[in-house]
Amino acid sequence: MDKVKVIEIKRSVYESNDREADKLRSELKEKGIFLLNLMSSPGSGKTTTLKQTINKMKDEFTIGVMEADIDSDVDAITIAKETGVKSIQLHTGGMCHLDAGMTRQGLDELIDSKIDFAILENVGNLVCPAEFDTGATKNAMILSVPEGHDKPLKYPLMFSICDVVLINKIDVMPYFDFDMDECIKNIKYRNPKAEVIPICAKTGEGIDKFAAWLKEQIKANI
Amino acid sequence: MDKVKVIEIKRSVYESNDREADKLRSELKEKGIFLLNLMSSPGSGKTTTLKQTINKMKDEFTIGVMEADIDSDVDAITIAKETGVKSIQLHTGGMCHLDAGMTRQGLDELIDSKIDFAILENVGNLVCPAEFDTGATKNAMILSVPEGHDKPLKYPLMFSICDVVLINKIDVMPYFDFDMDECIKNIKYRNPKAEVIPICAKTGEGIDKFAAWLKEQIKANI
Repeated sequence: MDKVKVIEIKRSVYESNDREADKLRSELKEKGIFLLNLMSSPGSGKTTTLKQTINKMKDEFTIGVMEADIDSDVDAITIAKETGVKSIQLHTGGMCHLDAGMTRQGLDELIDSKIDFAILENVGNLVCPAEFDTGATKNAMILSVPEGHDKPLKYPLMFSICDVVLINKIDVMPYFDFDMDECIKNIKYRNPKAEVIPICAKTGEGIDKFAAWLKEQIKANI
Repeated sequence: MDKVKVIEIKRSVYESNDREADKLRSELKEKGIFLLNLMSSPGSGKTTTLKQTINKMKDEFTIGVMEADIDSDVDAITIAKETGVKSIQLHTGGMCHLDAGMTRQGLDELIDSKIDFAILENVGNLVCPAEFDTGATKNAMILSVPEGHDKPLKYPLMFSICDVVLINKIDVMPYFDFDMDECIKNIKYRNPKAEVIPICAKTGEGIDKFAAWLKEQIKANI
């Protein structure tokens, strides 16, 4: 598959994004759809992590993926090709984040079949996506080892709104000045309740634990 | 030195950022000050690159650094400690970028002595900082190897407005699926005029070339 559906999403017109997000969240709950919002810096490994996670979970759940990017459709194609699940590309038209109205536009295209687990891969950005509630059931983020263990100190909001923080690329820890204990301490300083799961999306290490966490959340949402 | 001056910058009130940026740029030129705006994703190595570059150039130029972050002052302290040049921390109050008015607030604090080379380390973000002209003489960005060679396809504006793109962390190329030729092709696709310099900020490789490029630009600005 070399082509995926590309949606040019429009800026939302809603006055209150928070209200719109709460509305979307409760509509999704009624329909029995769990929506995960996955955020990170550019190049932290969101797409590879999703690929591995979807392949672990697709027998149990009907999954659909929205890949948000300013431009290009490489991620949606990767997901479609390598997992076989329904995947669409959202183009944000230069926008640095998605809000609830924009997420709804994507979901309207995605949910034409019975999907029970929808995933939004947000724009690669540690700042703006944290400021806009997408209506997701749960928020996840990836911090990768090469980015450094000090990131929770610099991007407080992102770490404080996420239910789970995946620490990716642990296979390259020997080549970077990365202190795992310090990293976890910094994450917990911003968000004591955050679940922290070290992973290597490339090899699949830790993905079982993330998939187990997701299953637990999905079941709690029904 | 464990303390640096921290400035809580205010949102700008100017109607036209472009006009304000042009005004700042020409004022700086009159004063003989070259302003470099350095941008990248979180954790691409901006501070380490600056540390190495400053140590190569500080005998020839009087350098001052503004470190922009949403929170924390670790970068300004690092620069002050490890290079000895004047360094101040700008807190953006949650803002995801700097514009010309915010940059001016920082410069007003920085330029109390004779500085001829001012550096702004922008907020770690590949999206929003590209949309706001800071008034800088030249724009530079860092893309690091772990982020992947496809980033110019996903963040078109950032790559198209930069005069120079540093490809950092080339020491870890063997551990990542990173294609240097493909990366340069992608950068040139977005911006045929961009200078591309592979570096390793940790070891100092390539920093001579970046310093030589900067000297050329500074001389051309006088």
